[in-house]
Amino acid sequence: MTARTIGVFDSGFGGLTVLRELLPLIPGAHYLYLGDTARLPYGSKSQATIARYAVESARFLQSRGAGHLVIACNTASALALDDIRSAVSVPVTGVIEPGAHSAWAALAQPGAQPPPAARPQDSIPSNSRQVLVLATQATVSSHAYHRACSRLGLRAVEKACPLLVPLVEEGWIDHPVTRQVIRIYLTEAIGEGSPDAVLLGCTHYPLIKHAIQAGLRALGHSIPVIDSAHSTAFDVARAMGVCLLGASCKPAPSVTFACYATDSVEKFARLGSQFLGQPIPHVELLDLGG
Amino acid sequence: MTARTIGVFDSGFGGLTVLRELLPLIPGAHYLYLGDTARLPYGSKSQATIARYAVESARFLQSRGAGHLVIACNTASALALDDIRSAVSVPVTGVIEPGAHSAWAALAQPGAQPPPAARPQDSIPSNSRQVLVLATQATVSSHAYHRACSRLGLRAVEKACPLLVPLVEEGWIDHPVTRQVIRIYLTEAIGEGSPDAVLLGCTHYPLIKHAIQAGLRALGHSIPVIDSAHSTAFDVARAMGVCLLGASCKPAPSVTFACYATDSVEKFARLGSQFLGQPIPHVELLDLGG
Repeated sequence: MTARTIGVFDSGFGGLTVLRELLPLIPGAHYLYLGDTARLPYGSKSQATIARYAVESARFLQSRGAGHLVIACNTASALALDDIRSAVSVPVTGVIEPGAHSAWAALAQPGAQPPPAARPQDSIPSNSRQVLVLATQATVSSHAYHRACSRLGLRAVEKACPLLVPLVEEGWIDHPVTRQVIRIYLTEAIGEGSPDAVLLGCTHYPLIKHAIQAGLRALGHSIPVIDSAHSTAFDVARAMGVCLLGASCKPAPSVTFACYATDSVEKFARLGSQFLGQPIPHVELLDLGG
Repeated sequence: MTARTIGVFDSGFGGLTVLRELLPLIPGAHYLYLGDTARLPYGSKSQATIARYAVESARFLQSRGAGHLVIACNTASALALDDIRSAVSVPVTGVIEPGAHSAWAALAQPGAQPPPAARPQDSIPSNSRQVLVLATQATVSSHAYHRACSRLGLRAVEKACPLLVPLVEEGWIDHPVTRQVIRIYLTEAIGEGSPDAVLLGCTHYPLIKHAIQAGLRALGHSIPVIDSAHSTAFDVARAMGVCLLGASCKPAPSVTFACYATDSVEKFARLGSQFLGQPIPHVELLDLGG
């Protein structure tokens, strides 16, 4: 059964948006979701600390039988994917490459094929399509999206938006302050440039996608806003050899999931259900020793 | 020398505002400051997690020779002071009682004496002076300020302000968004009431004290805004038997301090100097196993 047990990891609740996309895609699977809520947010921490935390969580999920790991956290994917892959013996999927691929697909001509896997290019032609990546400070500092976009021939402009996670967690989803903060960040990021798409490089941001789209329109940029949850879920299904033809849009009845959190399980169940889009009946408290 | 080694603990940088008040008060002392930056913020975590983290930090400071501990973190003072006192064998001073005492002193008649130590009163007379306490969610949920104010015959209204720490850490000290968020929180907290003073129940908030004062004035409340750093430092000095007569307003040359952080020491030195009001030449990285 471990081949059909999928471990999904995030520092908090945001990765539940990826689990939400996975549930209808892979019938018969059992999901283990771990939110390292006692130690969030990862986005303002150093690479060494993030890698240590993420490796502990990944090892826990493997020890509970996960046959595939999804690092549904942009910061951990950006800064710790190699460390995680070295620490476990099962396949690991992050969210950075699928996110960049989604941006490429949104901007490509119909029928185009992505360029073959290549090293990141130091110089991208100035007429390349430009992607504005909104993310945490740690993800931006890693330049992981810059490298992933560059491999696909896209120019990435990366913008740290440290207030967006606290605003989402405050519940100010459709709120004038959130709209104002988004407009400030977008204005700072866009400057004189003209992005062709915006990529949401943090799993909290899909909850304020409409506000980001409205902010872009107000600044005269009616461009696609892309998140990586959907394409990450498809990458996992492909990697597991799941037939995607006829995949239902609703969870198959046989799909089950268990949630673990390293801090308040009550808060996890309450806030997490907004991200997952369905009630979370039970959360188990987990002590990772931190 | 341990009797003159003072350990100061906070989840991050905010407690440096307390260290800043301590330095000029106790000449000849050596200070150890520990910011548990890898695990901040404490304000959104559960009591059990906060207590575990705070006890580990307190034990570390005692192991390094601290003869007196200052818990310069409202959240840890509110939720973990008893756990810390049980875990170490040196005197421990928190910031809640000194903060409440400062509010009492600001509102008392000249020459008045505080009421004798008493149990928190369940019912405070409706004509008592009212203190609006701004703090993190965890501090508010603990009602530690309510109990401390009640012992002094004051009514406390406690308001959680989760966005203020992220705004200070973003550096938006004098910023229209910060002013707007403060105004929203103050409006929600004050409602139809009329507080006599505002108590800053988080060591980050002194950096936006002017914006909070301006927000109160805009709402028609020109009342004192009080922080606990100064009175906490005086409580420590009194507990250590330091003669405060003629205490200089500048650090004595013999005062020394060492800083430890559990995450990026570069960020600690850079941001922390704003809170301390002087450069921090060296920060040692500390692994508490979390």
